[in-house]
Amino acid sequence: MRNIKLTIEYDGTRYSGWQCQNNRQSKKTIQETIEKALRKILREKVKIIASGRTDAGVHAAAQIANFKTVKTIPARNLQRALNSALPADIVITKVEEARLDFHSRFSARSKIYRYTILNQPHPSAFLRNTAYFYPHPLDIILMRKEAKCLIGRHDFAAFCASNSSAKSTIRTIKKISINKVSQLIIIDIQADGFLYNMARNIAGTFVEIGRGRFKKGALKKIILSRNRSLAGPTAPACGLCLVKVNYHG
Amino acid sequence: MRNIKLTIEYDGTRYSGWQCQNNRQSKKTIQETIEKALRKILREKVKIIASGRTDAGVHAAAQIANFKTVKTIPARNLQRALNSALPADIVITKVEEARLDFHSRFSARSKIYRYTILNQPHPSAFLRNTAYFYPHPLDIILMRKEAKCLIGRHDFAAFCASNSSAKSTIRTIKKISINKVSQLIIIDIQADGFLYNMARNIAGTFVEIGRGRFKKGALKKIILSRNRSLAGPTAPACGLCLVKVNYHG
Repeated sequence: MRNIKLTIEYDGTRYSGWQCQNNRQSKKTIQETIEKALRKILREKVKIIASGRTDAGVHAAAQIANFKTVKTIPARNLQRALNSALPADIVITKVEEARLDFHSRFSARSKIYRYTILNQPHPSAFLRNTAYFYPHPLDIILMRKEAKCLIGRHDFAAFCASNSSAKSTIRTIKKISINKVSQLIIIDIQADGFLYNMARNIAGTFVEIGRGRFKKGALKKIILSRNRSLAGPTAPACGLCLVKVNYHG
Repeated sequence: MRNIKLTIEYDGTRYSGWQCQNNRQSKKTIQETIEKALRKILREKVKIIASGRTDAGVHAAAQIANFKTVKTIPARNLQRALNSALPADIVITKVEEARLDFHSRFSARSKIYRYTILNQPHPSAFLRNTAYFYPHPLDIILMRKEAKCLIGRHDFAAFCASNSSAKSTIRTIKKISINKVSQLIIIDIQADGFLYNMARNIAGTFVEIGRGRFKKGALKKIILSRNRSLAGPTAPACGLCLVKVNYHG
């Protein structure tokens, strides 16, 4: 038995997410698209496990998934065959043999999500699906100052979607950076885990801070409140990208 | 009478080019899409003139076009109304009042086209429509050395599509740069004018040079031959982008 680890880049625009969150969505999922390609290549039914689900319209630069197989196809050939079979908006960037006990989700130590805001007066034809267009000025200095209070182990209930099934809303944010590159504001959040909509709710709250709706010190109060309605709105899915999953060893 | 100058960014993927090159294409053109939006806003039939046509699938970061109107709508409002009316893959990045004798095509002094090659072993989900994926190693040093002989006033017949109606195939290339940024090879070509398919034929020839099919000194011989069949193939449209149009004054 082999345990195959895939690194996957995808433009989530056309998909209802990694996996269906409900049955009413008519778009395909990333997972079923890759499983279908694997079934075609390996001629066996394969179930792949990802590091976590991404929502409809959310992207990944390096999602990690794994599956088990007895087939002997070399990793390099499998990668080539998969990229031929997959649509152009899903690309397998790496195929590796993993230890049998490797599990994309349970072995993950932390993840980095990136939220990208296009902050200029007019939208962009090229970034229309991969950045959140926000035309009004944002105070990035204040955003950075406020960001500090998110670092550490906290109850992030204020940033968790109300329909989440998570048992605990306590997570640890290891690092946050907010950088401006040309007209883009890039928010990187590294945490041991993310609640449902947590990254987008934090990004939406940063926009409210940056535009001056929330005053200095507001973010700390929002965390302590554990009240979702006090935080900012959920920022659009198109701005979010899973950029890295870190594993032990 | 006012003469309105538009700066336009577009992702050309969904379009049959700025203007139809033949009547068999079923996709929309950029020009008719913008004219339709203008007609809706100004309530008059408008004909816009671009700095030049771009082919099906070719992009623009700053195409220039102009049109005349008697309507008094302020430039800022026109920009906002246009961007609301246009699909997300066409964006008006600037609207200006131009002198009455300004003509997007005839007043242009030079243009810069950028050709982008994604040079890594696997394709990219995000760059699938905006870069030419080429997986084999390219010798960028040799490409740069050869590029020098294109600079200046030459007969570029060897790089001109055979079905071109151009009266003269003589053009002046003012500048060429070839840079590597991460996995991207970016070829910028500035010329006083471009023959039909000239930028893509030069890019296709650079790929042949980079992969070692053409030896040192070959490019000079290709130019002198005036023979299209000696140059490299036409590189795919998706890698090409009109990045700048320069005007006098």
